[in-house]
Amino acid sequence: MTTTGRQLVSTLTADGKLTLALEEKTFPAPTGNQVLVKMEAAPINPSDLFLMTTGADLENAQYTPGSIVMQLHPQVAAAQSSRHGKPQTVGNEGAGTVIAAGDGEMAQKLVGARVACVPGNAFGEYALAEAMMCIPLGDHTSEQGASSFVNPMTALGFVETAKREGNKAIIHAAAASNLGQMLNRICQEDGIGLVNIVRREEQAATLTDQGASHVVNSSADGFEKSLAAAIGETQAFLGFDPIGGGTTSDICLRAMERVAAAQMTEFSRYGSDQAKKMYIYGRLDMSPTILTPSYGFGWTVSGWLLMPFLASCDMPTMMGLRQRVVNGLTTTFASSYKARVGLEEMLTKDAIMDYAKMKTGEKYLVTPHG
Amino acid sequence: MTTTGRQLVSTLTADGKLTLALEEKTFPAPTGNQVLVKMEAAPINPSDLFLMTTGADLENAQYTPGSIVMQLHPQVAAAQSSRHGKPQTVGNEGAGTVIAAGDGEMAQKLVGARVACVPGNAFGEYALAEAMMCIPLGDHTSEQGASSFVNPMTALGFVETAKREGNKAIIHAAAASNLGQMLNRICQEDGIGLVNIVRREEQAATLTDQGASHVVNSSADGFEKSLAAAIGETQAFLGFDPIGGGTTSDICLRAMERVAAAQMTEFSRYGSDQAKKMYIYGRLDMSPTILTPSYGFGWTVSGWLLMPFLASCDMPTMMGLRQRVVNGLTTTFASSYKARVGLEEMLTKDAIMDYAKMKTGEKYLVTPHG
Repeated sequence: MTTTGRQLVSTLTADGKLTLALEEKTFPAPTGNQVLVKMEAAPINPSDLFLMTTGADLENAQYTPGSIVMQLHPQVAAAQSSRHGKPQTVGNEGAGTVIAAGDGEMAQKLVGARVACVPGNAFGEYALAEAMMCIPLGDHTSEQGASSFVNPMTALGFVETAKREGNKAIIHAAAASNLGQMLNRICQEDGIGLVNIVRREEQAATLTDQGASHVVNSSADGFEKSLAAAIGETQAFLGFDPIGGGTTSDICLRAMERVAAAQMTEFSRYGSDQAKKMYIYGRLDMSPTILTPSYGFGWTVSGWLLMPFLASCDMPTMMGLRQRVVNGLTTTFASSYKARVGLEEMLTKDAIMDYAKMKTGEKYLVTPHG
Repeated sequence: MTTTGRQLVSTLTADGKLTLALEEKTFPAPTGNQVLVKMEAAPINPSDLFLMTTGADLENAQYTPGSIVMQLHPQVAAAQSSRHGKPQTVGNEGAGTVIAAGDGEMAQKLVGARVACVPGNAFGEYALAEAMMCIPLGDHTSEQGASSFVNPMTALGFVETAKREGNKAIIHAAAASNLGQMLNRICQEDGIGLVNIVRREEQAATLTDQGASHVVNSSADGFEKSLAAAIGETQAFLGFDPIGGGTTSDICLRAMERVAAAQMTEFSRYGSDQAKKMYIYGRLDMSPTILTPSYGFGWTVSGWLLMPFLASCDMPTMMGLRQRVVNGLTTTFASSYKARVGLEEMLTKDAIMDYAKMKTGEKYLVTPHG
């Protein structure tokens, strides 16, 4: 018995033409510990948009029901030469109901259950997933469980990374995002200092209302001084930056150095000996990262990705993180969405031009059967 | 009994006025395991120039015999606020003859010997040094031993760092420098692959004549392709960049990613899972470091400094590195100089405007009694 449903597919050709289209996809009956999930809710994350809109001319694209054809910036197209001509399914994570299962014991236990999963084709009506990778949602709705993986595991991964590297406090840029709000709650629970950087006063209020002790507004006068003061109070010499382009990481490193230099007893031509580090985990800004020679040589800027982090965890750690997410789905790890769109609606000009902006706090949820 | 001699001192005031001047300095008789060294030769390294010329208007400075008064760029002056009004001695390393020693056994053994040392005031007639930190030069001249520390230990430190981090090959930018030539010889001795990046054909010839297998010229057509080819042949995913500003590190990371992507079996939206790393160990270019979003998230750019590296070595490792330097002073670790200048001559406009350029292969040697 097979199951057929619509699936969002992204195809890039060598000449830079990017097609997003709904295609009929047929799934065989699940075997072993596979389950077939009827997808009910899936968030559009920045990591999904990379395959959908990065470098694309959305304004002048051809929109027809169920498909968009757009032109990609030549450099962006060239950088993805290994996917030229190879259709990619889209949608990292989501939640839904298990409607069929293989013979395996783990799979059989999930029949009829609502689960969160990370199938890589969550923007579709159906997805096959490994039972071991599914998180049973119990009484939670699919919408409540849709973002159980990427954001919660990323936020927990930051705190785990900070602890491993010997830090008691961290900086987070673009801190009012769903992810940032989770991180704010986790840090309070774990006693980790957190310096939240936001761009607007109402974002600062959101975080302060949720118990944040240190929130600095990058649009306010004296931002760099406020940032240094917060770093001084928390001793945060590690930061996480989802913006990537421009000077966000540079500003953080400069503020860290200002604090470290003030704590030194004598001048060093090489800067302070305080190790300073920024992880870039996203590219909300695709312009180059700018690093000025203002903080000696005791600094590191590095990419951070969820999958290598997870691969570095042992099984008990992984299971502990997953259990913590399930326990806190409507509290610590709660997400909110600006809008819900069906599969066809997500390919309309109005919708895509809005969610492609990746504005803080304006995430979309896809409801494939909606 | 005291000893008095001239010493180069650098003083920066809060208004950005930088004074380089020869001052009379009196040394007490050495005690314990201290030795008093009559300094005979000291190289002008980029790390010395940071205290002497970085950000300074050399063209319009006031030159008088034995002193220069110049104006520093306000940002550079502000970044060094912790040294405002505090005179700094200059000259990291050099070599000379031990003319007095404390009672300690190690110190007594060095009386009359030529030694290399790292006193921090090598641009002067005399310096006090710890016997344990001195390297006896045997029959080598002071000129041969003058650069026994900074460049040799840095080049050895690169190779040690590469090995520790699991690399079998490295990239080196500005590779025709004294340091780069040492690194070329060390890598051949140790069987470490080396991709040398140079800017001129004659520099490429210098390194090739010295046995380099991979030399790429950044001024030549097809530079980035040649670089990627050399990385592919050596599998060098770690590099050392003394330029710092501009796109040198970015170009290396892009070439590494090009090689890694070609070795992948399937496309990943996050770039290759090959870890790529560049260490910035100098700032020959003080403009910002530019990092483009062209190599996913599996990358790191970090500062590299000699002193923290040495601090990370255990004593047997340190002694092994030192012995290797002494054994190879006229071969592996040989340095060459463009010109020799006395203390007064180094403060003339002609001299300082030339050595401040830090041109590859044009290092100056100070002969304090010359």
